Amino acid sequence: MELHARKRIDIVLEAPVLKRLTDLLDRLDVTGYTVLPVLGGKGHHGVWSREGLPSSAGAMVSVTVITAEENLDAVLEPVFTLVKRHIGIVTVSDVTVLRSDRF
Amino acid sequence: MELHARKRIDIVLEAPVLKRLTDLLDRLDVTGYTVLPVLGGKGHHGVWSREGLPSSAGAMVSVTVITAEENLDAVLEPVFTLVKRHIGIVTVSDVTVLRSDRF
Amino acid sequence: MELHARKRIDIVLEAPVLKRLTDLLDRLDVTGYTVLPVLGGKGHHGVWSREGLPSSAGAMVSVTVITAEENLDAVLEPVFTLVKRHIGIVTVSDVTVLRSDRF
Repeated sequence: MELHARKRIDIVLEAPVLKRLTDLLDRLDVTGYTVLPVLGGKGHHGVWSREGLPSSAGAMVSVTVITAEENLDAVLEPVFTLVKRHIGIVTVSDVTVLRSDRF
Repeated sequence: MELHARKRIDIVLEAPVLKRLTDLLDRLDVTGYTVLPVLGGKGHHGVWSREGLPSSAGAMVSVTVITAEENLDAVLEPVFTLVKRHIGIVTVSDVTVLRSDRF
Repeated sequence: MELHARKRIDIVLEAPVLKRLTDLLDRLDVTGYTVLPVLGGKGHHGVWSREGLPSSAGAMVSVTVITAEENLDAVLEPVFTLVKRHIGIVTVSDVTVLRSDRF
């Protein structure tokens, strides 16, 4: 099947910031995103949950965005500006999609 | 450590279709898959949840399948035939595995 | 934006082994990890849940670790030694990060 190259952005961030992120994504040239729950983790800011239970540091979520490579910087820059003020991790990887018209 | 190249297929789709997808995967040459919960998202069909709570559009799940590159089309074609009749996203990426005999 | 190449390790394993894995990651040169819930799946050891409900086989979790390529083997070897004694899947993929000092 014909596969089309895109970029996948994964953003792990504090759940209370999710609405601000999705509002931002709505304003950008992003056709979709998926939000997954996060049980816990550890990062630059320390452990935010150890036993898979939400700690006082608050719940985290993971948001995946698929974007065209030519739009990557236009999405990544405002997303990173938002995330860097909070607890969060942003990674970018290569992915292919089946429907080129959808992303 | 020796790593073996495989393909990773990620399928985000409506939870009520999950059983049909896993039945399909069982009939195909797929040795395993992993199912993750999805809190919400936005796609071609609109927002299906905004606040991280299941909306009337129904819950979504994310299914990850690892397959050999030579089996990719044999898996992807029937999966896509199923998913395209529903709300769903299919992406494919490169991955490596430790146990070549398991995938 | 400047992106820095790293390796992403995804470990799907039995929830009761999670604490042993995170203790191990703490002893290794790993700056962070993220834990996601898993609804179910199928693997070498059989189906561990079919309907998205935890079965008697026990819950699974998915742990993502980002590491520098030069540390990959130092992380992967002890992780694999732990995982291979349990039900689990380890995959490795390429990823890029924005903050090179964080990973």
